[in-house]
Amino acid sequence: MDVGLYIGRFQPFHYGHLSAVRFALKKVRELYIIVGSSQKSHEPRNPFTAGERIIMIRNSLQKERIDPSRYLIIPIPDAIGHAVWTAFIDQVVPKYDIVISNDTLTLQLFREKGIKTLEAPLKDRSKFSATEVRRRISAGENWKELVPPSVAKIIEEIIARGRFEGLE
Amino acid sequence: MDVGLYIGRFQPFHYGHLSAVRFALKKVRELYIIVGSSQKSHEPRNPFTAGERIIMIRNSLQKERIDPSRYLIIPIPDAIGHAVWTAFIDQVVPKYDIVISNDTLTLQLFREKGIKTLEAPLKDRSKFSATEVRRRISAGENWKELVPPSVAKIIEEIIARGRFEGLE
Amino acid sequence: MDVGLYIGRFQPFHYGHLSAVRFALKKVRELYIIVGSSQKSHEPRNPFTAGERIIMIRNSLQKERIDPSRYLIIPIPDAIGHAVWTAFIDQVVPKYDIVISNDTLTLQLFREKGIKTLEAPLKDRSKFSATEVRRRISAGENWKELVPPSVAKIIEEIIARGRFEGLE
Amino acid sequence: MDVGLYIGRFQPFHYGHLSAVRFALKKVRELYIIVGSSQKSHEPRNPFTAGERIIMIRNSLQKERIDPSRYLIIPIPDAIGHAVWTAFIDQVVPKYDIVISNDTLTLQLFREKGIKTLEAPLKDRSKFSATEVRRRISAGENWKELVPPSVAKIIEEIIARGRFEGLE
Amino acid sequence: MDVGLYIGRFQPFHYGHLSAVRFALKKVRELYIIVGSSQKSHEPRNPFTAGERIIMIRNSLQKERIDPSRYLIIPIPDAIGHAVWTAFIDQVVPKYDIVISNDTLTLQLFREKGIKTLEAPLKDRSKFSATEVRRRISAGENWKELVPPSVAKIIEEIIARGRFEGLE
Amino acid sequence: MDVGLYIGRFQPFHYGHLSAVRFALKKVRELYIIVGSSQKSHEPRNPFTAGERIIMIRNSLQKERIDPSRYLIIPIPDAIGHAVWTAFIDQVVPKYDIVISNDTLTLQLFREKGIKTLEAPLKDRSKFSATEVRRRISAGENWKELVPPSVAKIIEEIIARGRFEGLE
Repeated sequence: MDVGLYIGRFQPFHYGHLSAVRFALKKVRELYIIVGSSQKSHEPRNPFTAGERIIMIRNSLQKERIDPSRYLIIPIPDAIGHAVWTAFIDQVVPKYDIVISNDTLTLQLFREKGIKTLEAPLKDRSKFSATEVRRRISAGENWKELVPPSVAKIIEEIIARGRFEGLE
Repeated sequence: MDVGLYIGRFQPFHYGHLSAVRFALKKVRELYIIVGSSQKSHEPRNPFTAGERIIMIRNSLQKERIDPSRYLIIPIPDAIGHAVWTAFIDQVVPKYDIVISNDTLTLQLFREKGIKTLEAPLKDRSKFSATEVRRRISAGENWKELVPPSVAKIIEEIIARGRFEGLE
Repeated sequence: MDVGLYIGRFQPFHYGHLSAVRFALKKVRELYIIVGSSQKSHEPRNPFTAGERIIMIRNSLQKERIDPSRYLIIPIPDAIGHAVWTAFIDQVVPKYDIVISNDTLTLQLFREKGIKTLEAPLKDRSKFSATEVRRRISAGENWKELVPPSVAKIIEEIIARGRFEGLE
Repeated sequence: MDVGLYIGRFQPFHYGHLSAVRFALKKVRELYIIVGSSQKSHEPRNPFTAGERIIMIRNSLQKERIDPSRYLIIPIPDAIGHAVWTAFIDQVVPKYDIVISNDTLTLQLFREKGIKTLEAPLKDRSKFSATEVRRRISAGENWKELVPPSVAKIIEEIIARGRFEGLE
Repeated sequence: MDVGLYIGRFQPFHYGHLSAVRFALKKVRELYIIVGSSQKSHEPRNPFTAGERIIMIRNSLQKERIDPSRYLIIPIPDAIGHAVWTAFIDQVVPKYDIVISNDTLTLQLFREKGIKTLEAPLKDRSKFSATEVRRRISAGENWKELVPPSVAKIIEEIIARGRFEGLE
Repeated sequence: MDVGLYIGRFQPFHYGHLSAVRFALKKVRELYIIVGSSQKSHEPRNPFTAGERIIMIRNSLQKERIDPSRYLIIPIPDAIGHAVWTAFIDQVVPKYDIVISNDTLTLQLFREKGIKTLEAPLKDRSKFSATEVRRRISAGENWKELVPPSVAKIIEEIIARGRFEGLE
């Protein structure tokens, strides 16, 4: 396979995502990491801005010494309807051979277009999920073990600035 | 009455809708069937695309030998706010005398504009509702008795392609 | 060929369009007539609303005794970018085999998606063009010979209501 | 302080808001009252249009003989994402020194931009809240004691026209 | 007449607009001044933001001792299509009896909705036009005689910050 | 300087842009290359999609052996109004110290927000401009000398697929 998309919301980027990126980079020569729902932030399910998520991913992959020439990180906002969303991605990523994701809707939307898809294997999903990270942050539990240290650093700064108190 | 609008989301088109179309065609010479929320699809409450819904309606009415010169089927996306939504409809349907619907908000929005409205009579609403059709599809119960055969055929193909597994 | 799209702006629908519809209906069993730029009206290049254009097309085809079960008329607004526009059409027209148009950009956009296209033959294009109809309306010249009588009737009413004086 | 923003949704404007306006006018020379989510109406949480809310505020402040040269009332729709929303406000209100609100997310969004914020003191919040006014309207309880008489008059007319029956 | 709309872009607000406001306030008890194309700024034809235009109008009317209880200034962005634009205005201004403007398209759009319109008399239009003010600013000619002193002060500050050099 | 933005439309990316990137990377440790008007393509002034432009930039910089850990390439669509556009960029790029561009409007918009700006030096602008590249492509003149070889390869494929014939 030449080119793959790895699609997620990354709210936030955690060890499960990191292992999926490693998995994907074994399958494809080049990986476009799509940061979905890029317009969303400051919401309980989407606390982080696209900019914060891009930096989380970039810093984590650099720390892991993953070759930066093998991936691009591209933010994509939600489309007006699910059925046109894949076209919004095609607009910024010209050609790809396979779509890798853990979101069943994402996989279904690409399958309906006739595009090859692959569900990324996630070990210990009950633990390594963005939902769980956000739950622990809100509950004041230990969330740092779920994310790479470079992500933890970014989140800590955001917590300190009061972001999570503003969410309902 | 010369011209009427019949407005619904048709997720999916079922026997209740078909009987409402028959009812409306007795009241008006010409009927514009408005397929609302046309941008929505691949969601639990809105599984079908506008294109799929248009074909469901068209095939059902043709099978029933309803004169195709008496109706038009027109998709309309949601507006940015409820208060401007009727204007989006006026943009694509120049003149009409009455609005027929089963949705209380739709009826209220047109009444506030001073337009005549009529609630379509629905027999056995607990059974013939799109909510019930979707519930039965998800539960694997018998949903085919609720929709015309030409709709059932379209839905079966969509189920086979995995659409309903992608919904949360 | 089973299903075709015939795409235009129809500002207004004229004899050239009518002959293209006849041509298309010889090629395909079923034709979806797409009324593009449906959000535009009251502009020099786009004086008519989507509703007015839909009725122009419908009335003309009925007068010509073209079988109404063989076509659907579907308005489509412009997309946020050309590269996603075909996806907006796919959203409301599930499956088609060929795209027929006289607009080179439209044809190119579908060709880039790998879809079969056909340029509709237009006789006497210098005369039968929407640009020419609009020019004659503004200049007070004889425009009625360029459009079907049912279109002429609609345009006359719109002129009488002062639409063309409001355009710059 | 020279200029302040007082931001709310005002669904509807009640005595709590009125006392917040009085509070704000003691802090600033000039107050821009921002009517947020201006595109929303006819929803359970947002029953009133921006126009209705603007008139509620204006009539109440006039009745209270608050100097009309000291405030402007400006409607602002929701932005595509929370992180750009403050920019939408900056577009229509050139310069301000402080933001006053009772909404924690609003306050957080401005604080992240480095803007001074102030939480308006609300006495008896369980009673004087828009949520409580809407609850009482729906329940048929006494809501009039919670809003200024000029607001009550506007709401009564809206109730009489059936607005609340159309909400789900 | 009870309530009137006075609609313009006010790029910038000049003596012609001021005399139109005076004219309108003789016809109606209450005037809603609609600042159109509110999203536009930093363009040759639309150099000023909505906020700047609102303050121009407010400061001019206050200086002229026009009773602030008789008018509201309300920004409205362009709609997605001309045919729905009047609905965007209706959303923020509940009831009005007449529309006053100098823009022929604006007047035509409201007339088509069956609303009473009035063209504001403009003395010496070749001189007192926003186009002329912008031309003189760009050409470095005397533009200050065309606008009220409070507007001139605002424009001078904007020129000093380099706004007009950034326009093409 | 820590972080800089380099903003352009890159229609297409040419040697002038490449030298500006080199210039910028001497000024800042890290560079975010913003691909503006990302929604535009298939237009005379904007023939290339965001995806094509991202790949042009990425391939050129890789060929030049510019360290991929020092830059990110981020597409940004046009905003609804110029005055909110910088906020759209802030949404995807959390913190930056300076904005580098050759577009006077871009520089002005950031300056009005109080952000440090720098005009990138462009040698031989009459030759190395995207306008000139597009002009030569359309005229069939030698355009390849103006762009890096990896860009030329991408453009040649796009020309071969007929993109430029579809433009008006």
